[in-house]
Amino acid sequence: MRALPFLYLATILETTQVIPNNLHLLRPHSGLAGHNVEGIDCLSWRLAVETDNIRSWSTVPEDCESYVGNYMLGKQYREDCQVVADNAYTYAKNLTLGDDGLDIWVFDIDETTLSNLPYYAQPDVAFGAVAYNSTTFSEWEAKGIAPAVPANLDLYKKLVNLGFKIVFLTGRTETYRNTTIENLKNVGYTTWEKLILKSSSDSSTTALVYKSTQRAALEAEGYRILGNMGDQWSDLFGTNVGNRTFKVPDPMYYIS
Amino acid sequence: MRALPFLYLATILETTQVIPNNLHLLRPHSGLAGHNVEGIDCLSWRLAVETDNIRSWSTVPEDCESYVGNYMLGKQYREDCQVVADNAYTYAKNLTLGDDGLDIWVFDIDETTLSNLPYYAQPDVAFGAVAYNSTTFSEWEAKGIAPAVPANLDLYKKLVNLGFKIVFLTGRTETYRNTTIENLKNVGYTTWEKLILKSSSDSSTTALVYKSTQRAALEAEGYRILGNMGDQWSDLFGTNVGNRTFKVPDPMYYIS
Repeated sequence: MRALPFLYLATILETTQVIPNNLHLLRPHSGLAGHNVEGIDCLSWRLAVETDNIRSWSTVPEDCESYVGNYMLGKQYREDCQVVADNAYTYAKNLTLGDDGLDIWVFDIDETTLSNLPYYAQPDVAFGAVAYNSTTFSEWEAKGIAPAVPANLDLYKKLVNLGFKIVFLTGRTETYRNTTIENLKNVGYTTWEKLILKSSSDSSTTALVYKSTQRAALEAEGYRILGNMGDQWSDLFGTNVGNRTFKVPDPMYYIS
Repeated sequence: MRALPFLYLATILETTQVIPNNLHLLRPHSGLAGHNVEGIDCLSWRLAVETDNIRSWSTVPEDCESYVGNYMLGKQYREDCQVVADNAYTYAKNLTLGDDGLDIWVFDIDETTLSNLPYYAQPDVAFGAVAYNSTTFSEWEAKGIAPAVPANLDLYKKLVNLGFKIVFLTGRTETYRNTTIENLKNVGYTTWEKLILKSSSDSSTTALVYKSTQRAALEAEGYRILGNMGDQWSDLFGTNVGNRTFKVPDPMYYIS
């Protein structure tokens, strides 16, 4: 039932507002070379973000706010997530796990296992087109009502059934441990090996360094990281990244 | 004038065939979860390929042949390339180069600086939906008439003007050195520091290992790899990848 706000938003959009058919249409171009003289081609922008060609960006370009909003609330985002999850499962089910319980799958949390879309869809957040507001985001996080990313909840359940141990490795801080545990359990993530949150001593560390350090510690404990999934490249680059990485779409924000 | 086959193809497509307006429209989905029950969502497939979530694939899915063809011959591919090149230039122009001539930019060749689209657009190649045929591809390569990727030729010229030394690092073999030189020069790549091709001893090495080894050798010679651009993740992963990498779109084939 916790997923209601998310479904509600999507339902509203699908029933009361016609999702423009030209969501993905090409903008007018001038001439054969196809260069878009004015404005931003939001599909190209999103691809460049997803492929790590645009880095350290602070907000979604103003011109792309409604594009990103329609993408995130529409079917394409869900289908994009589903294809990543499907490929992750195809990879995972063909592995032979040890019987020592040390084969792990590392999941990031925000925009990977839990979705902050109900927060990001608010007018004053504008799908990331407005500058990040740590106060209002923390208030949202504290509510503990983030819905699951459906494709990855389904993947999680399948991985648990295959015998993987699950490690959640998140940039959320220890302050939100209990809220996060409650939130995860309420939406269906009922079991895990470890939930690793940032301690106060990690506060000034980049996600890339923090997560590399934590993964190195996991491997030092004997765990084998067979899969590693996150919505940020900083979840997947660095050291000890695991045997396979999976990049979940996220055109709303960038974390280094 | 060597670019004519490429332009010709694109012109034919744009003048004699209406590019379907629903090229990027969403396929029918069943229910709110947005999961595409039958068939492949080709946009999701392409995103998953570009983000390295689908690896070691041999051919474009049959269902996506016309999607990939329309994408490659249409404006979106060129715009996607342009946005990557624009971001590469924004990065490059803000660097301060040394006066020792050791600041280099590494470019892959096929589908990065030269385009094999006239070959891939042939019905029996089908934009990669038909299995790779090394014989016919070699025949095409030997002609030395591949057009430039427009956005990256433009980037190349700007990088040369900024003072970068250019290194072409390609999976093409030494057999095609003269053809490749002629081809590069004919389309506008007129100067470079090194053109590194695979020698016979590299023939069984993966691109990832071969290119890492060659980049390590460049750094051992004192070169600083400030930028590294390729259409395959195997151009950009491994060791000695350079200060920044740029992934050029390529949904037609995969090289490990």
